[in-house]
Amino acid sequence: MAYEYSPPGLYVPAFEIEHRLQGIQEMMVQDGFEGALLFQNMDRFYFSGTMQPGILFLRPQEEPILFIRKNIDRAREESSLERIAPLASLRDLPAAILEMDVSLPQTLGLELDILPAQTYLQIEKLFPSAHLLDFSVQLRRCRMIKSAWEIENLRQAARMTADLALAVPSHLEAGLSELELAGRLESFLRHKGHQGYIRTRGFNQEVFYGHILSGPEGVRASYIDSPSGGLGTGPAFSQGAGFKKLRPGEPISIDYCGCFDGYIVDQTRMFSLGTPGPEVLRAYQAMIEVQELIKDRTQPGVTGDQLYHWAVEAAARLGHRNHFMGSGAARAAYVGHGVGLELDELPLIAPHFSWSLEENMVFALEPKVILPGIGLVGVENTYVLTRQGLESLTTASEDFQIV
Amino acid sequence: MAYEYSPPGLYVPAFEIEHRLQGIQEMMVQDGFEGALLFQNMDRFYFSGTMQPGILFLRPQEEPILFIRKNIDRAREESSLERIAPLASLRDLPAAILEMDVSLPQTLGLELDILPAQTYLQIEKLFPSAHLLDFSVQLRRCRMIKSAWEIENLRQAARMTADLALAVPSHLEAGLSELELAGRLESFLRHKGHQGYIRTRGFNQEVFYGHILSGPEGVRASYIDSPSGGLGTGPAFSQGAGFKKLRPGEPISIDYCGCFDGYIVDQTRMFSLGTPGPEVLRAYQAMIEVQELIKDRTQPGVTGDQLYHWAVEAAARLGHRNHFMGSGAARAAYVGHGVGLELDELPLIAPHFSWSLEENMVFALEPKVILPGIGLVGVENTYVLTRQGLESLTTASEDFQIV
Repeated sequence: MAYEYSPPGLYVPAFEIEHRLQGIQEMMVQDGFEGALLFQNMDRFYFSGTMQPGILFLRPQEEPILFIRKNIDRAREESSLERIAPLASLRDLPAAILEMDVSLPQTLGLELDILPAQTYLQIEKLFPSAHLLDFSVQLRRCRMIKSAWEIENLRQAARMTADLALAVPSHLEAGLSELELAGRLESFLRHKGHQGYIRTRGFNQEVFYGHILSGPEGVRASYIDSPSGGLGTGPAFSQGAGFKKLRPGEPISIDYCGCFDGYIVDQTRMFSLGTPGPEVLRAYQAMIEVQELIKDRTQPGVTGDQLYHWAVEAAARLGHRNHFMGSGAARAAYVGHGVGLELDELPLIAPHFSWSLEENMVFALEPKVILPGIGLVGVENTYVLTRQGLESLTTASEDFQIV
Repeated sequence: MAYEYSPPGLYVPAFEIEHRLQGIQEMMVQDGFEGALLFQNMDRFYFSGTMQPGILFLRPQEEPILFIRKNIDRAREESSLERIAPLASLRDLPAAILEMDVSLPQTLGLELDILPAQTYLQIEKLFPSAHLLDFSVQLRRCRMIKSAWEIENLRQAARMTADLALAVPSHLEAGLSELELAGRLESFLRHKGHQGYIRTRGFNQEVFYGHILSGPEGVRASYIDSPSGGLGTGPAFSQGAGFKKLRPGEPISIDYCGCFDGYIVDQTRMFSLGTPGPEVLRAYQAMIEVQELIKDRTQPGVTGDQLYHWAVEAAARLGHRNHFMGSGAARAAYVGHGVGLELDELPLIAPHFSWSLEENMVFALEPKVILPGIGLVGVENTYVLTRQGLESLTTASEDFQIV
């Protein structure tokens, strides 16, 4: 595609939406869902191409209906769906469905993983004869396999992080605070068209671009599910960049997301001001080795669980048994995670994730280790799984950059 | 307080937590709650001082118990609560409560407005004899009245937005995109210690600092509940700053949040490159008049509903009946909203909000009008209600700044 950080001005193409609907409708038939109601922003966007507020009603055999609470004109402009109807309130939904000559479903799928309890209880009353079932696994499974169009968007996002890695050295200065560095790098990304906001699906997960962490303070475990933590700006935002100033010789880990047209890639690169201690460079080399080992072995058919255990074993063999992916109770229970419209998509590269990995899954792998008293060291790339194995979308040099 | 954008390094003081607990426990007695479970980040933080993941168990007459899933050391450091206990999984909660010599409550309050349905259904099974009730109104009502300590944090946040307004003119340039301007201003705010992330409670609400909107494109209605919208970066993030370039003479509205130690203030100021049309300046003057009229009349005892109607009537009298706070179905159903740890707190300055406003409530008022074909024009300040009326925390000059 021709655009380079220019306004994409592209709506999600009709063929994308059709393909996605076909996939989810097949799952509905297979798993016995007569209908499903989608409320969450990215679920609705994925199947309709618009974020205008409302509810998307899916059925296994018929055209979906997009009910819109406001800005129906913008919804019609952005979405290629045929049936778009106004809906003032959730209360009116059963009548609105019946009005469109559609019968009410007896088994109704809902996003139980994130739908507010209050809305769930209201739907229970509005559809008294329907059996309400969790539909989030089907939705997440469908969104897990990326199309060529999605992978192209992810490649564009990865160009942002490649450029970012090149730009970092010119912004690094001893005495600069992590927050000041964050401001410079975020401004750089906004200049490239970054939407700023990084979405997560999980309740209570909060992400802001990513983490800039330097020195021993960077290994403080945070409240989010991540191997990295940091001081943050204080107890009210106790993760990521903080007021701490960059010091010579300490590892500086920059784990930032690129984002293009909603699609996110995740990348971590290491920097330092002056040469760090040899244990830092050795640990980094070990994490690169862990990464290469996983890359060598990964092909369609292996499971996230297998990858995770390969990584943990390789790290242990290389001397990092105790602090790989964090320490003690704060150890992150994964070494990778799916990315796409959200940062916490499937698959998980984690224990007990027993689904076979398939072609066109996209996920980040982030082998990282804590060096107590020194800092966080590691690498992260976002990959697409092809028939031949893992292809890295993130292309920034993996050299530990000493500035 | 002495600090100025420096690391606060302050934990939420014990006297704050005690005072807050006393308030919510009185409500529990009054409204008949034998217990309440708090899951949401800011609800837990507000009553414990830490965001480390877990569940806060409140009872009307006894010490609360903070159950922590991970990072219990950091939780103990950040929180002044006495009873902090580890909890590996929600499944273990009833046993963990009984182990602490506490009986299981028969009426259990939950944050039904935002608690995921899946968690709700799990609690239903874990506490089969408990009556599960919505506790979110009590929580939001408690958080609505700010303490002197909170107001001091809000004043610090307002110093950021005052400085921001002073800095804007030096960053404005014709031909700069809204996104590029956003990057510069966000970097400025990070330099001042801004946490970046702006929290909302509402499901599907997404905020990123705020909105920079210029010219006619700035009035496109967005998916969030706001009078302002904008193109955003595309259909996947269709609000706020976009690729549009700043043009001479058009209104540029900068609606950005300051944030200090988690506390948010909301401020909008107007700018233009060269003199805008007289209708822009007239509309701005009208919005200032609407604001002043509300300010003159507001004192403890009036309702949010009254304020809203005063504003709508004043705007209509000044010639802005049709496009005040947006147009048609996209009109925002409010003229103000509470702020604090989240951007969508209570009170609402909105129709049907019939609670009497009380001393130490903090809310933003944002009379704004759409001039079709021209742009969005308006003003926004964050106020604390005192015995004498509204005091503005945001202190930036309200002059329409022509650069």
